[in-house]
This record gives sequence, C-alpha cells and structure tokens, in this order.
Amino acid sequence: MKINDEDRAVILFSCPDRRGIVAETAHFVSTYNGNIIHSSQHKDDDEGIFFMRIEWSLTDFAIPKEKIFSAFEPIALKYKMDWELKFGNERAKVAVFVSKFDHCLYELLIRYKEGDLPCDIVQIIGNHEDTRKIAEYFGIPFVCIPISPETKAAAEAEELALLEEKKVDLIVLARYMQILSPVFVERYRNKIINIHHSFLPAFIGAKPYHQAYKRGVKLIGATGHYVTGDLDEGPIIEQDVVRISHRDSIRDLIRKGKNLEKEVLARAVKLHLEHKVLSYSNKTVVFDY
Amino acid sequence: MKINDEDRAVILFSCPDRRGIVAETAHFVSTYNGNIIHSSQHKDDDEGIFFMRIEWSLTDFAIPKEKIFSAFEPIALKYKMDWELKFGNERAKVAVFVSKFDHCLYELLIRYKEGDLPCDIVQIIGNHEDTRKIAEYFGIPFVCIPISPETKAAAEAEELALLEEKKVDLIVLARYMQILSPVFVERYRNKIINIHHSFLPAFIGAKPYHQAYKRGVKLIGATGHYVTGDLDEGPIIEQDVVRISHRDSIRDLIRKGKNLEKEVLARAVKLHLEHKVLSYSNKTVVFDY
Amino acid sequence: MKINDEDRAVILFSCPDRRGIVAETAHFVSTYNGNIIHSSQHKDDDEGIFFMRIEWSLTDFAIPKEKIFSAFEPIALKYKMDWELKFGNERAKVAVFVSKFDHCLYELLIRYKEGDLPCDIVQIIGNHEDTRKIAEYFGIPFVCIPISPETKAAAEAEELALLEEKKVDLIVLARYMQILSPVFVERYRNKIINIHHSFLPAFIGAKPYHQAYKRGVKLIGATGHYVTGDLDEGPIIEQDVVRISHRDSIRDLIRKGKNLEKEVLARAVKLHLEHKVLSYSNKTVVFDY
Amino acid sequence: MKINDEDRAVILFSCPDRRGIVAETAHFVSTYNGNIIHSSQHKDDDEGIFFMRIEWSLTDFAIPKEKIFSAFEPIALKYKMDWELKFGNERAKVAVFVSKFDHCLYELLIRYKEGDLPCDIVQIIGNHEDTRKIAEYFGIPFVCIPISPETKAAAEAEELALLEEKKVDLIVLARYMQILSPVFVERYRNKIINIHHSFLPAFIGAKPYHQAYKRGVKLIGATGHYVTGDLDEGPIIEQDVVRISHRDSIRDLIRKGKNLEKEVLARAVKLHLEHKVLSYSNKTVVFDY
Repeated sequence: MKINDEDRAVILFSCPDRRGIVAETAHFVSTYNGNIIHSSQHKDDDEGIFFMRIEWSLTDFAIPKEKIFSAFEPIALKYKMDWELKFGNERAKVAVFVSKFDHCLYELLIRYKEGDLPCDIVQIIGNHEDTRKIAEYFGIPFVCIPISPETKAAAEAEELALLEEKKVDLIVLARYMQILSPVFVERYRNKIINIHHSFLPAFIGAKPYHQAYKRGVKLIGATGHYVTGDLDEGPIIEQDVVRISHRDSIRDLIRKGKNLEKEVLARAVKLHLEHKVLSYSNKTVVFDY
Repeated sequence: MKINDEDRAVILFSCPDRRGIVAETAHFVSTYNGNIIHSSQHKDDDEGIFFMRIEWSLTDFAIPKEKIFSAFEPIALKYKMDWELKFGNERAKVAVFVSKFDHCLYELLIRYKEGDLPCDIVQIIGNHEDTRKIAEYFGIPFVCIPISPETKAAAEAEELALLEEKKVDLIVLARYMQILSPVFVERYRNKIINIHHSFLPAFIGAKPYHQAYKRGVKLIGATGHYVTGDLDEGPIIEQDVVRISHRDSIRDLIRKGKNLEKEVLARAVKLHLEHKVLSYSNKTVVFDY
Repeated sequence: MKINDEDRAVILFSCPDRRGIVAETAHFVSTYNGNIIHSSQHKDDDEGIFFMRIEWSLTDFAIPKEKIFSAFEPIALKYKMDWELKFGNERAKVAVFVSKFDHCLYELLIRYKEGDLPCDIVQIIGNHEDTRKIAEYFGIPFVCIPISPETKAAAEAEELALLEEKKVDLIVLARYMQILSPVFVERYRNKIINIHHSFLPAFIGAKPYHQAYKRGVKLIGATGHYVTGDLDEGPIIEQDVVRISHRDSIRDLIRKGKNLEKEVLARAVKLHLEHKVLSYSNKTVVFDY
Repeated sequence: MKINDEDRAVILFSCPDRRGIVAETAHFVSTYNGNIIHSSQHKDDDEGIFFMRIEWSLTDFAIPKEKIFSAFEPIALKYKMDWELKFGNERAKVAVFVSKFDHCLYELLIRYKEGDLPCDIVQIIGNHEDTRKIAEYFGIPFVCIPISPETKAAAEAEELALLEEKKVDLIVLARYMQILSPVFVERYRNKIINIHHSFLPAFIGAKPYHQAYKRGVKLIGATGHYVTGDLDEGPIIEQDVVRISHRDSIRDLIRKGKNLEKEVLARAVKLHLEHKVLSYSNKTVVFDY
C-alpha cells in the first residue's frame, strides 16, 4: 500500500456485529464521491465482534478533510464503533528505544530512509551510549537515559516527558533490554511494539536462544507484538521462523535470529503504521491484503 | 471458509473500474437483509479493471435463491460486470485426469473424503489402468481412455462426451501426462487446473526436475495453474518451493517434489472451488483472505 | 539417500570426544576396500560428545557382512562408542498406532507403498475400528485394541506381545490419542516417534490448535519427536510451521495443521529409518546431509 | 562456524572419485595430532567427481603452518586434486561494487561490522557517488569510477589496477548495474558474487520484478551466484523466495525483493568466505553442514 502517495483516508473500527455495517460504511464513502482503494472486514464469531478497514482516495471527495470525522460520527455511534480516522499524509511520530544491540535499529532507519515506513522517526532513546553515532549518522535526535533500579522511576518520567513533548504516536522497542513499568505501558496502550526473540509463546522471558538451544528445537522464531502489562504476553502482530540444526551453536542461533528479528520487527511496525492492525482480546486482526 | 456449511451466496465479478461499485454491491446485499460474511475487492491500476468477491448468508435474505440472479442483474449490467453467482450448497462437479503417478490423485481424494474440498468428484479418467484400484477404493467411477497419436482425437471426443454427461464444472489434471488439444482447452476455459512440477516460468516443458538438477538451483517448486493453449503459460493460481542441496539426486528431487506438487495442487483446487479465483490477462486475482 | 538400493553398511555412534576417531573409522572402511558414500560427524562442545555416521558400499568390501561387527568392535571399545551397525538391505519392521484421525496413516502408507520409506510396515494397531478399511486396502495387518482406564494395562500387554511377535523395531504414533505407560515407553526407548500438533515447546498437552487460536499466533506448527516419559518433552527430530491469520477459525487451523502434521511425521520417520538420527541429552543430531 | 576464532586450517578439494580419499585425508590430519572440527564430502555420480572439505584445529598440530601445504601436496598429487588450503585467521580481502541502490551494501557492512563476515572489506567501488557517505560512515575507502560505453575499457582497467593493488580476493556486486567484460570476469573466476533479483533461471536479464509482475507469479525470488561470461547463468550459491499476491504492485515487489536480496547476498558471501563453496560444471557444492 502506498498510503502516503496521495491524499487518502482510512477508517478502522471494531463494533458489535450487526447487519448493514459494510454497506453503510461503503455507501458513506461512495455517496460523497470517494473512490474505495481497499476495504476489508472480519467477524469474530465467538466474540460477536465485527472489524473493518476502509481506505479511499480523497481526490474529488465531497467532504473536506477536517469535516470527515463529524460526518462519519453518526454512523459510528449508530453501530457503537470503536473507531479511528487516519489520513495518508499524516505521518505517525515514532520513538525508537534501544540498548546495545543495533541490528533492529539499523533496519528500521534504513527502511525509514528509503521511504518504506510511512512515519517520522523523531527520537531515539538509548539506555546506553552505544547507538548515538548511528542516530547522528541518520540525523535523528538521540538521548541516553540510563536505567538502574534506583533511577528507573525518574528515568521513565524523563522518557514520558520527552515523548509528550515530541508528540510521539508509536514507540518501537528495538531490542530494548528494559521492562517498562505498568503505568508507562498503560499510557501507550497498543502503541508500543516490541520484538521478542522467540516464537511466542515458546521461550518466554530471558535468553530465549539459550532456551531454544537446550530444548533442541529445529526452528527458531521471532515475534513482533504490542506490549502489555504481562511480559511477552501482548497481542502478536507478526511472527516468523528460520531453520536451524544441531550444527548451530548458541552463537549461530543469535546470529541467525538477528536477521529474523529485524525483518519481523520492521514488518510489524509497517503494518501498524499503515493502520492495518486492530487489537482485541489479546489478539490482533491484521488487514494485510 | 466453510462455504458449504450453510446457505450462502457468492458473487464474483470483474468490471471496468468506476466509483460506487463496492457500495452498490454491498447495499444490494444488506438492503435485502443479507449478512455479509466476506467481501474483498481489488483494482488493477494498469488495466483499469475492478474485481470483487462478496459472500453473504442467505438466512433471512429477502430474495429467494432462484430470483437473486435477476435481482442483481441490473447492477451487473450498469457496471458492465463479467460476473457469476454461486451458492454454498451447490457443489461443483469435478473430474480428475490422471496417468500413472498417483500421489496427487490420492491427496485430492483423501482431502475430498475428509470434506476439505467442497465439490463432488464424479469421475476419474486415466489414460492408463494404474489408478483404477484407487478410484474403486474411494468409490469414484473410473474409466481408462488410452491415448496414442492415432487415437487422440477419438479419445478426446470420448472424454468430452463423458464430461458433458456428468455435467463436469472443473477438470483437475493430477499429473496427467497428455497435452489437451486447443479445442478441448477452449471448451473448458479457466476450468482446467494443472500442476506443473516447477516454479514457473522456470523449467517450462518436459522433465523440469532434470532441468533443475542440471542448472543447480537451490530450491525446487510446483505451480498450480489454469490450462490455456500455451503449454505451462496459463494463469498461475498457487506456487510453492522446497529447499534442496547438491546432496539431492534427481530421484530425491522427484520425491521431494511429489510432496510439494500434491500440496500446491490441492490448495489451487480448493481456492477455485471456493470461488476465490478470478482470471484476467493471463494472471489471477486470488481472494484468499 | 538410497540406502536400500544396493548393499551398503552404516555405522552410527556417539562417544567421548577424542582425536583420531574420524581417521580411524574412515581407515577401517577404506583399508578393507569399502567405498565411503557419506560420512558426517558432529561434536557437542558443551558435553564433549562426538557423533559420527559413516555409510559405505559393501561391493568389493573385504570383510563379509556377518563379520563386520566383530571387526569394528575393537575400535568401538577403544573409543568407548555407543554404536550400531546397520545394513542397507535390512528393513526395519514398523508398527503404526492410530486412533480415528487417518491423515497421518494415509501419508505413511502412500509413501511406504511408493518406496519412499525403507521399512516393512508389519502391523497397524488402532484403539478404534475406524482405520481398519485403510489397512486392508493397503494390505497391512490391522488389530483393534480398545483402551479404557480399566483395560489399559491389559491392552498394553496385548500390544507389547504383538510387537514382540512381529519383531517390531519402530513404533509410529500417527495421531494416536492415548498416552503410553512409562514401562511401554522404556521398552522402546528412542524407538517410538510421535507427531505433536504444535511447534513444541509451545502448546504442550491437549488441544494445541485451540490454544494457538486463543493466543492469536500467526504461525502454527507440528513436531515429530521421540516419546519419553515426559509428555511432549522428548527429543525433537523435525519441526515445521505454516502461516495462519485472524481469518482462520479453529477448524481452519485443524485443516491446515493436518497437512503439516503428516508431512513432518513422514519426514521424521524417514530420517529415523535411514539411520540418520542420534539422540542424546533430550536433543537429536540429525545427519540430513 | 567460527573459522576465525582460533587457529584452524581448511582443505577444500575436488578430484576424480577413488577409494581411500576420505581415510587418507583424515589420516593426514590425525596422524599429526590435528583435531578435526568438520569434515564433509560429496560425490557426483554422474560426473565421477569427489568433493571434500576438512577443517581442523591447529592447536597441537605437529606441522607448522607454513609447511602444511608441502606436507599435504603428495596426497593431493596422488589423487589429482584441485585443492586449496586456507587458514582461519587469514581473512579474505573483499571489494564491494555498487551503483545507486544501497540496501545490499548496508547489509554487508552491518554484518561485517558485527563480525558475521570473516573478511576485510578493503574497498568500495561505485559507478555513482551515491554511496560515498555510507562508505565513509563505516570507514571503508570509496572510489567513484563512472562507466559509460566510451569509458568502459578505461574504467575497468582502473578497477583492475585498484583490485590488484588492494590484493582483493573476492568481489561482491551489491546490485551493481554494470556488466563486467569477459576479461574482467575471467581474471576473477569464481571470485565475483552477484545478486540477481529473481529466482533464476526465471526472469533472466533486465527488470525481473516487472517480468514477475507481468507473469503473475505468486512468489518472487533472489539468487546469489558466481559471475561467469554468460549473464545470470553462473553457478548458484544461494536462493530464496518470498510470497506475493495480486495486491502487490511492482513497487511492492521491489520493496519486498530488496529485503530478500540483501539476505540472500549476505548468506552467499558468508558461505564463500567460510570456504564452504566448491564450483564445478556450472553448479556448486555448498558444504553448509
């Protein structure tokens, strides 16, 4: 999808399942002369929840952008939608948190620079100095906020203040080796994406490659997920695996895993930025046509 | 998708791209109290063609089944649709053509028997006797129609008569080692699915595993496609690959390839039977949510 | 590998790591005019264990088959090897245990019949009658031994007696829905292969597809492993995964999983039958060139 | 493999197949107290060629490094080996050629910096200025040698002089958009690795993603191969694919392909640098345990 190529709008919602939702939503777009680019829906039969994503061109659309929200609101209210309206040329502001490993950071920055991630990366926050030089090379503000058990509360307060100041919409934990406090996580609910270096729910917690090595699995994985209060238990956005064998040492697992982690994280971030992910019941609906 | 679980309808169409198609189609369903189960659309920007598939529950639908076609026809005419209407409890009648290799035939019959392929396999046609016993075991009529250069025309006439008699909607070539004549192919346009044992367009023609071995590729593939007049050039429905190495002899390639062929063919057939495939410009749109 | 094509021998061993093992073993083969077809070795640095598999042609080999064991024994003793000697034309005798699901059984029998599994399937044991007809079709003896909590001990005694009588070397649990007793398992240590329908160690235990659905994973897996006393905890031989999405119901997961299970189980069984698997420390070395 | 971790040697050879090669080679290592780390062999039955790679620790090896070549030479002569001897702490000198696309260059430099590629990247040669800044950031000498039909001969002469001066062992074409002359290619036979952005032999030549889009394939691929006089026809080292659908525009194919290209190229280069690749009859043997 080339959401930022031209003037486009996306409405993303979930609501109790009921007849007429697709028709009424599509009718809203077409009656005002909008050209639908993509439309996807999904119904969770167990939960009775309906999900939809509709993306249309604003070229010739009869309602000015600033009035679309209030024009659609009656439909949203009628169907009790939990909804959001996004515009293609609005770019989410992203902060990347990083520790010492830099492979995920590099991958995000290179794809960002090439225009593959429709966002503005406005801040990199490290708890170590190691990646400052990378940030400078790519021209992104970097700040080092070290974390120790004693300073954690103050450090998070500093981070939160910076995120507020920069109006950050999405936080990406690019192999950030600190656990965020519940208050922090709650503040950015469904707006923090982490990469866990295993095929969740296998190998939750620390040193998943060591766990994988010990268990003798034949594939290792990586999981991009939203961060919730429960460590490694948040809604999964994207996963993938790579084959290993008994020949691979832990060091080989770490090396092969790195290339997987960066790919899976970048895909998860891109899906989020294109407004293709809806989260519910600790799962996700990913409208990846 | 469980298209045959209950009373459902599917409309599948392509037409010149124009505004309002999605809305008007969805409105048709909802205004008569149909509950949309799935709806997908696609636009080919280069060709200016619009594609859509909409599937809805007929429970409570206000129009009786036999009148849905004529009720929708005005919309189809308005948008110049090339369209079809299918019902979930209508099961396509399928004939399977086979030679001596039986792995694809077995796979289709086992999945069929387990209810994974929504169709009725009404006939197996072999140009050898080898698979008669399999057909009998699964309780499917089998006929052996040998082919030689001299008898080809008569054999095809016999086949066509049988297909007519059995009202066959789809022909599956399950490693059938004969080339169908242009007349035969034209009669069942987009209704013959073949499995080619390579990742097309690599290794077109005879002995693709031998070609792959000679070229030293590191992956071998299989391609499920509609048959057209040009050998191995028809619209591709599904493809997949499996890793090989220099250790693999041609015999290993053939063995590994068999397991891939049967999987890819079964997937392609299932997609077709669920009315998820639209063909145009020698390509396919596959609405595999 | 075409181990049963001609007269070949395989020695498979593990031993404490020491210099000279490869050279002395290879020298044993070549000095008696054996032609090495494959030779692989592996060293576990953590455990200090050395593993080797060597396969050679017996054409022109100077030692008659029945004397090879005693000829190699001094080397085995010198290096404290845990070893076995196998001949290519010796075919393992296999029993398949099955309940109601028949997809794995079909896959094994079809590959067996095509010559892809170098063994003799001498017995199928069901705890239900459902698969009797399949066994008869393929010409394999079938016996139904129902299991209930009360009859379990007697049933296992009957099974063990039958396995003894048939001189069974390998038991394959083809979606067999009963847990074997510790005594049974111990009797066939590293000689029982099970297919678990998840990517172990994720989703151990009952109903893994339901667990996977609830967790919202984006891939589902299957694991072929040796059975040990700890349920789903035995050494893993082979694993693979298939992509799913929020569109897939539990029923879809079960369907997609079936095709994965049968593939993974068949691969694991083949690796074992070709004497390519060594088990240690609850892991495996798989010499799959 | 951690070939550069300690003092190791690798002998890599091909020769006419004959008995005793493995035993005699292994004996050479063990008799002088070398500890074999890995040993792999392969036989091409059609061509009657034998291939072997043996890697051993030089700790306690009785022959000093500088005399190993002459010590092994009699065996090499006896068996008519085409052979090379490499030491783990010898690092190949690598030059990377690049045009405007920088994703492959970045990937190589990041992996290099992390120690995943056992080599010294001594020179980057661009035919455009675009990547100079990247080279400077990573601290690698960069030179821009523009190419036009008129200047091609002079440009290549300049390149060859530079490669000589820097004693380059391996040239990596990281999406270098120029065709090297036959003389250049012959000078660095089996020492130039290119990444082609298709699953060869499909879509040889220019604009493979456009060709793939037009053909409607369901997977796109990338191929890392040695460069020979025939464009895109050289021995394949590594290939992989990624799934696409009708939703993907050519631009999407290019984006998805980029991530595949860089991964496949990096893997191919690593295999070469670890002395795991032997080339013959336009194919490769890749000893990737």
